Amino acid sequence: MPARSTTDQERARIARAAIDSIARRGETITRFMLATELNMPRARMEALFEDDDALFSAVVDEWYREDADFMAQLAQSDLPVRRKMYEFYVQRYRRERARYDADPAAFALFLELGTAKFELVRGYIELADHHLVEIIAEAQAEGYFAGLSLDRALTLINQMVICYTSPQMMLTIDHRLAEDKLAAIIDTIFAGLYGDQGTASGIHTLRQA
Amino acid sequence: MPARSTTDQERARIARAAIDSIARRGETITRFMLATELNMPRARMEALFEDDDALFSAVVDEWYREDADFMAQLAQSDLPVRRKMYEFYVQRYRRERARYDADPAAFALFLELGTAKFELVRGYIELADHHLVEIIAEAQAEGYFAGLSLDRALTLINQMVICYTSPQMMLTIDHRLAEDKLAAIIDTIFAGLYGDQGTASGIHTLRQA
Repeated sequence: MPARSTTDQERARIARAAIDSIARRGETITRFMLATELNMPRARMEALFEDDDALFSAVVDEWYREDADFMAQLAQSDLPVRRKMYEFYVQRYRRERARYDADPAAFALFLELGTAKFELVRGYIELADHHLVEIIAEAQAEGYFAGLSLDRALTLINQMVICYTSPQMMLTIDHRLAEDKLAAIIDTIFAGLYGDQGTASGIHTLRQA
Repeated sequence: MPARSTTDQERARIARAAIDSIARRGETITRFMLATELNMPRARMEALFEDDDALFSAVVDEWYREDADFMAQLAQSDLPVRRKMYEFYVQRYRRERARYDADPAAFALFLELGTAKFELVRGYIELADHHLVEIIAEAQAEGYFAGLSLDRALTLINQMVICYTSPQMMLTIDHRLAEDKLAAIIDTIFAGLYGDQGTASGIHTLRQA
């Protein structure tokens, strides 16, 4: 990955300070409140972030930086494809889990802030989908997920694994989430997901049957 | 199912009125506010519901009555087991979907109220699990889900299908939910869920690999 400029590093440092401050205060923070907290000239803060959204955007970048780096690294790795998909999900789950366990209230607050500014988060969801599609294509080249388009496989897999990617699920069923269950779900997907099965539905009139 | 007493029928009628009123007002309602709305003596309301929780408990019963009746009926049916599991989920999903589509704000409000009084909702979640376990046992008798305990199969299936049972998911990804996707997920579960696969995980040190 390209080296970051000094200015980018300063933005990242301030974004990390914003994350800490938001978690501590229990509410979001403006550029100028943060400048005061950090004992930093307002003019410097304004030069780095043109508005509060720019600061929050940097916060989102910090939140997802490790995941984004990991996903890019994973795509280049020569792991077996099933294992690759498992790592794709479990590494993200572990990071989110650690954040949740460390401070559930702060985790809920960041979810709320991210939901309110969803357009700033969307890019990372799309990035994750992009890397997952690469893994799906690799699996299809090995014969898995036969008879399914990439988009179809993507949406079905995302839905079956949503317990391990959704912060809402972390907040509501955290005690039921476990890495070995995630592994069993990935195994089930690799063994059982393909097109043209079509026997679970078919008739839709049970009451008349 | 046993015939309901006149008093039970009156409670159910008032609970339905409470559901309508809560949806219309956008907030919960007490027994006495509801008595005023219905032009009904307070004493009669008190005789029927000993406190506001008793009223809300009747609201929960009304909310889930159709689902509970359907699940009991499904368990007795002679549908093929895979189809049975699909119907188990799709009928519930359709009912919730219809409620959500009719009034998303009211749907969100009932989720909030149910979360606040979760002990009143828990019984229905346990009832659904009870019926799902019956379906899983029937499937295992036919050779599906081999090598898994009932509890293990239950938790894995619940997690893979959570998009279609969780009201939080309805509120956040409603546009991605579809009956044919649910059918594909059930098919994947029947084709691919069994014990002792264990190859997705195994090593946990990708970065060192």
